[in-house]
Amino acid sequence: MRTFKEYAALVNEGLETTLPAACAFDRELLEACRYSLLSPGKRLRGSLALAGCEYAGAPLEKALPFALAVECVHAYSLIHDDLPAMDNDTLRRGRPTCHVAFGEAMAILAGDALLSHAMLLMARACETGGAGAARAAVTLASALGIRGMVGGQAQDIVSENAGAGGEEALSYIQRNKTAALIRAPLLCGLQAGGADERAERAFSEYGLHLGVAFQIADDVLDVTADPATLGKSVGKDAEENKLTAVKLLGLNGAREALQRETELALKALEGLPGTAFFRALAQQMLVRNS
Amino acid sequence: MRTFKEYAALVNEGLETTLPAACAFDRELLEACRYSLLSPGKRLRGSLALAGCEYAGAPLEKALPFALAVECVHAYSLIHDDLPAMDNDTLRRGRPTCHVAFGEAMAILAGDALLSHAMLLMARACETGGAGAARAAVTLASALGIRGMVGGQAQDIVSENAGAGGEEALSYIQRNKTAALIRAPLLCGLQAGGADERAERAFSEYGLHLGVAFQIADDVLDVTADPATLGKSVGKDAEENKLTAVKLLGLNGAREALQRETELALKALEGLPGTAFFRALAQQMLVRNS
Repeated sequence: MRTFKEYAALVNEGLETTLPAACAFDRELLEACRYSLLSPGKRLRGSLALAGCEYAGAPLEKALPFALAVECVHAYSLIHDDLPAMDNDTLRRGRPTCHVAFGEAMAILAGDALLSHAMLLMARACETGGAGAARAAVTLASALGIRGMVGGQAQDIVSENAGAGGEEALSYIQRNKTAALIRAPLLCGLQAGGADERAERAFSEYGLHLGVAFQIADDVLDVTADPATLGKSVGKDAEENKLTAVKLLGLNGAREALQRETELALKALEGLPGTAFFRALAQQMLVRNS
Repeated sequence: MRTFKEYAALVNEGLETTLPAACAFDRELLEACRYSLLSPGKRLRGSLALAGCEYAGAPLEKALPFALAVECVHAYSLIHDDLPAMDNDTLRRGRPTCHVAFGEAMAILAGDALLSHAMLLMARACETGGAGAARAAVTLASALGIRGMVGGQAQDIVSENAGAGGEEALSYIQRNKTAALIRAPLLCGLQAGGADERAERAFSEYGLHLGVAFQIADDVLDVTADPATLGKSVGKDAEENKLTAVKLLGLNGAREALQRETELALKALEGLPGTAFFRALAQQMLVRNS
């Protein structure tokens, strides 16, 4: 296995050239797309796709389209989440959000364009990648919509408006809004790479808990972090009355839940050989600071 | 070949059950999705996918996922186009637009969910439909994003803001904003059904001109129609200084262009057997009233 930094570098390299070059009539749209897609990010989701593929013993090219697609999806989701009608954020990854830089209409379209581009990358992968690629495409596509990220985001807003919601609603939000798009690329990589069923099952469980841990760490950071370090606004969750782990469990309770989810992620890999990379990644969730 | 009405009925039947049933946490999102997806529409794009497949001599099931996917895409594009930051429309298909009925945040998410659902339908088709399905998926995905519908929509807004633009910009808007999503499903159907290259080339040309004719008819209707008949607001193009055929060529010039595009669509099919259905469809563009 390579290091996380190496996977992230490969993802960044692919992202640089994945969008078409601008023509006379789409300069502004492409600028908005590139602004958000290429702004410095951890590339966690894309790196997980590559790591899954390498774990399966296949060449990374098999997972690269999915790694790039999931980063396009992640970038689109951030653009739309930041819109005035949604979280109304002005700072992201240390820079003005897309709608602040390009206007609201162009930001909506840039998000739509990035999601459409993800679709194109996946369709092309299906054309050349056979059954494994088609399975991976179904996995990723399933994680995006109503029973995935968008569904979680909708419940996030419904809970916010209601100013209420219990553990079940919180769990739905954590699993769908966040964990779906962390678990799916990892599974995608395994499927595109042809991993066996046992590994798939274990990593499916691992990815879910890793993703929930990631969201809880995010909730904690919104209370404890410095905005300059975090690169985005803080204190927004309480301000907007969002249903978060911190709101429901308190800061200490949220930290305990983070610890518990991390342990469940590690437990899911027990008995599976060669998982040091993934165990280290889960442990980093506990000390996440951005 | 079946009649247009029969294809549209098959599309409507498929749309009724394509979205998942609501669970405790996604009622509002699903309601917004269904509100827009199932509101009465012509189902032109979905019907073209089925007609293309039937022309290729294949069972319609091969094209049905693409027919439903393109209608999901069309519904999402209408929701996002109607948003306050975009065209700011309050009336669509005779009913309040999605953001008027469900709020702006839920409308953005419903659009995202419908596009994601289109992706899922296409990915599933690739899992079972072999090489023809994968080609069809690439064709449809290519028509959606930067070099397709979203790119056209972006140029539409750029031209509107600039209050300017010549024939090249108008042609870019017509081809990308509108014709891409009329030509693509027809090609999708042919490809999923395994049509020969000659038919594909001819219908590619036909679909492009049919789509441009459709947009010009739309521009003309915005000036001449009664909103009650049309089911959406009229007179908006001039109000918003949109770059349309009517703005650039005048009403008579636009009608002449519509006639010309219709003739080019018909000409593309010359020498191809069994195209009565498609020729009749092109001729209907001249008398479109909704």
